Amino acid sequence: MVRGVLVVPLGLLVWFCCGSMDAVHGGKVLVMPVDGSHWLSMKILVEELSRRGHEMVVLVPETSILIRGSDTYTTQTFHVPYTADELNSNLDKLKEGVFQKPELSDVVVNVERLLNFTTMQVKGCEGLLYDEPLMKQLREKGFDILLTDPFLPCGSIIADAFSLPAIYFLRGIPCGLDLDAAQCPSPPSFVPRFFTDNTDVMNFPQRVKNMLMTGVEIYLCKKLFASFDELTKRYLQKDMTYKELIGNGAIWLMRYDFTFEYPRPLMPNMVQIGGINCAKRKAIPTDLEEFVNGSGDAGFVIFTLGSMVSQMPEAKARVFFEAFRQIPQRVLWRYTGPVPENAPKNVKVMKWLPQNDLLAHPKARAFITHGGTHGIYEGICHGVPMLMIPLFGDQGDNVQRMVSRGVAESLRFYDVTTESLLAALNKVINEKSYKEKMTKLSKIHNDRPIEPLDLAVFWTEFVMKHKGAEHLRPAAHELNWIQYHSLDVIGFLVLILVTIILVTVKSCMFCFRKCMRKTSKKKKE
Amino acid sequence: MVRGVLVVPLGLLVWFCCGSMDAVHGGKVLVMPVDGSHWLSMKILVEELSRRGHEMVVLVPETSILIRGSDTYTTQTFHVPYTADELNSNLDKLKEGVFQKPELSDVVVNVERLLNFTTMQVKGCEGLLYDEPLMKQLREKGFDILLTDPFLPCGSIIADAFSLPAIYFLRGIPCGLDLDAAQCPSPPSFVPRFFTDNTDVMNFPQRVKNMLMTGVEIYLCKKLFASFDELTKRYLQKDMTYKELIGNGAIWLMRYDFTFEYPRPLMPNMVQIGGINCAKRKAIPTDLEEFVNGSGDAGFVIFTLGSMVSQMPEAKARVFFEAFRQIPQRVLWRYTGPVPENAPKNVKVMKWLPQNDLLAHPKARAFITHGGTHGIYEGICHGVPMLMIPLFGDQGDNVQRMVSRGVAESLRFYDVTTESLLAALNKVINEKSYKEKMTKLSKIHNDRPIEPLDLAVFWTEFVMKHKGAEHLRPAAHELNWIQYHSLDVIGFLVLILVTIILVTVKSCMFCFRKCMRKTSKKKKE
Repeated sequence: MVRGVLVVPLGLLVWFCCGSMDAVHGGKVLVMPVDGSHWLSMKILVEELSRRGHEMVVLVPETSILIRGSDTYTTQTFHVPYTADELNSNLDKLKEGVFQKPELSDVVVNVERLLNFTTMQVKGCEGLLYDEPLMKQLREKGFDILLTDPFLPCGSIIADAFSLPAIYFLRGIPCGLDLDAAQCPSPPSFVPRFFTDNTDVMNFPQRVKNMLMTGVEIYLCKKLFASFDELTKRYLQKDMTYKELIGNGAIWLMRYDFTFEYPRPLMPNMVQIGGINCAKRKAIPTDLEEFVNGSGDAGFVIFTLGSMVSQMPEAKARVFFEAFRQIPQRVLWRYTGPVPENAPKNVKVMKWLPQNDLLAHPKARAFITHGGTHGIYEGICHGVPMLMIPLFGDQGDNVQRMVSRGVAESLRFYDVTTESLLAALNKVINEKSYKEKMTKLSKIHNDRPIEPLDLAVFWTEFVMKHKGAEHLRPAAHELNWIQYHSLDVIGFLVLILVTIILVTVKSCMFCFRKCMRKTSKKKKE
Repeated sequence: MVRGVLVVPLGLLVWFCCGSMDAVHGGKVLVMPVDGSHWLSMKILVEELSRRGHEMVVLVPETSILIRGSDTYTTQTFHVPYTADELNSNLDKLKEGVFQKPELSDVVVNVERLLNFTTMQVKGCEGLLYDEPLMKQLREKGFDILLTDPFLPCGSIIADAFSLPAIYFLRGIPCGLDLDAAQCPSPPSFVPRFFTDNTDVMNFPQRVKNMLMTGVEIYLCKKLFASFDELTKRYLQKDMTYKELIGNGAIWLMRYDFTFEYPRPLMPNMVQIGGINCAKRKAIPTDLEEFVNGSGDAGFVIFTLGSMVSQMPEAKARVFFEAFRQIPQRVLWRYTGPVPENAPKNVKVMKWLPQNDLLAHPKARAFITHGGTHGIYEGICHGVPMLMIPLFGDQGDNVQRMVSRGVAESLRFYDVTTESLLAALNKVINEKSYKEKMTKLSKIHNDRPIEPLDLAVFWTEFVMKHKGAEHLRPAAHELNWIQYHSLDVIGFLVLILVTIILVTVKSCMFCFRKCMRKTSKKKKE
């Protein structure tokens, strides 16, 4: 990478380290984020693009949860047909039951919850799409590209309506719709489906389960994406499913890599930016630094259940307090519930904590997490073993990926006891293998030719400069399911083969009969 | 990429542009190249790795064609059971017929020629493998990794014998064995097979042809790789095919990208380094500079048929001379055959020419090439439209890729006339679309987050540091063909379904009959 000159002006330096990567300035980017934790990592890219001289306009629903204004980007608020209270009650429903033992099937429950949430989001999207003055104003801004998370449909619909190339920034879409839409093969024989507890190595029953889940996904996701399909068709006035719509995306910035996901096929326009949220870290505030340094050799534990869940039933909270009382580590816990009077002294409860910066601290010994991908990558980045307590969504599958690598232990929230928590925590902290395996994984994750944020910026600017990434779009998009799998060709060839065999057999039999007749005639004569 | 400091010492600069990419020094790399043009681009990586402090030992057959000693790497010569003359006559056979119209099927001819060549190369490999003192000496050197082109089997066999992680550096292996071995999906519905003249967009008859070729490949390649399989089994004393052997490779450095190849699935351990051979360029010698500058606005044409073919039948050479006489451009021709007395003045015939540096010259107007991938990438790098005359091997398919992008015209050598040559050349030079499309392709190719050579070095050092790239190896390697395609699972589920249907139908019929009997009894009563 380095070619020899030691003292260089800024412009040269760009050329210096990456030859042909010439910068673009003054691009106009329309951003349609997905609210909540999805926004937290997209924001990093938005801010970086702004820092590099692009005009960033972020569309924000007026009931936004986590999207705030900023000096680095412009926000454009739009009206949604529900109040903040209605959204919060909807979100509460999404979280409902996360502390209880799941009934019958996780899948149906998860999909039902998601369905409630997305239906409301789709309504919110309509608030924007059918706000004609605002849409006109946005259209006239002359954006170069649109950056969105296709987890929700609004961004992709606007991209199509404005004829803008779309950049996707995502962890994934339920039912693997992202892979389907990108024409990415995903054989169920070694690519585990969500909610199956399968790894990439499966025995026969596990492969049967994986295949059955592939079928279940088709059914459930038809239901889940029905409102997306309907909105796409209605607004764009095109006979097009949501899958077909997002298939037009230029670049998929996938928020994972193969230290987390199991290795599987990729498409040329899928770019891995796993760990984009943890590459940069800041010093922690002085009071926290004092607290964690006071932990001595024992070190400290970070405990959060994600941006969505900051409380838990009081009885359960006591279980955690009691377990923490019995460990030599100090504990930093993001918790907004009531703290018992006799709470142990080694626990510091906070409304919010600088998770990434704390995990980067050399005294961090373990990370108790719900298994969201942001937290997982922060753990991997800084090599901190994890105790994982999945709550909902993809978290169960995320956790399974880490546990199968030997870098984490997992517990189910509903049956956590002081004893089981203590045992798991001690295991993760004191059994060397967890730290060793996590350090190895961390080294592999951090050893990369280019930082994920730089890669995300590069591809965003690439699409701006070249008005898309058409050379990475597979021709598979022009084929239907039967054509893609060559079933028509196989059928045709089988038909020909059968015809040839039939004709040959018939001819042979005809000749044989004729010969036989002649022979018998001769015999008679 | 650039984070703000303007004046930085060298160490910082490395961190500065690529955070975690820490360098490795003093690695020991065993290199088993494939001779001929394959070596020319691998040499670039070998020299760069040496420059970065690694000990490079290159294994060279004593009858080497293009592999020479160097100051930057060590060579280790090994005995082969054939003379240089025998090798040359074998090579001549490989080239035999390249100037004639192919009979019946190119495929069979190509495979037959290749078979003759590879059989001799396998014998050469045995010369090395069974030279026990040399092998012992190499084993004791304690190499970290092995770098090879799996087009021939010697490197991969040594990697297995020495238990070294293997890095592959290649354009491809006949019959797509590389994709097969890497478990990379390659659907015949949009991934064109070699020798079919198909692009990635195929109609039904073309898809039938593609599917048939997939079948033909299976048969031909069984023949082609029989000696590889046999040597693998015999030498390693393992029940293993050559495909299984190379499936163990850590990283596949693929010498193409999607400005040349049609977009299709990739696997995580496949790294694209297309254009590695043309990123760096030097000034051309003074006499050449004078010659090409003397061409005025008309510019000049570069004409070579690759490292293997420097002559042609005299009558055909005259066709070229006559065509060149009629164009305003000057022509630089790599040609070692007899030059007619009245050869035109605008043609400079040379035994060897600095192809990449000439193509980078601003006065270069067209590139007449046989369509080897090195030349093609030099043309793409520097944005020079091409007139392509494929001779053998993958060249026909390479040419087709460029022609379908509108950046090249093609002619078949056996029916080139002065008129057709002139017409095609004038088209490529004077019709603006060729230059415009090529400039666009060139910009896309050169716009990349990291240079191909740096990427190749990165992954080589990655494998050295982490003793492989196990996290990128798909679990598909543990599955057989039936399991990979889930045929056993599908069969099982169909069986269950059929059983359920049968039992249901039988039960219904049983009940129905019982009911009927009762009814008829009642009626009778």
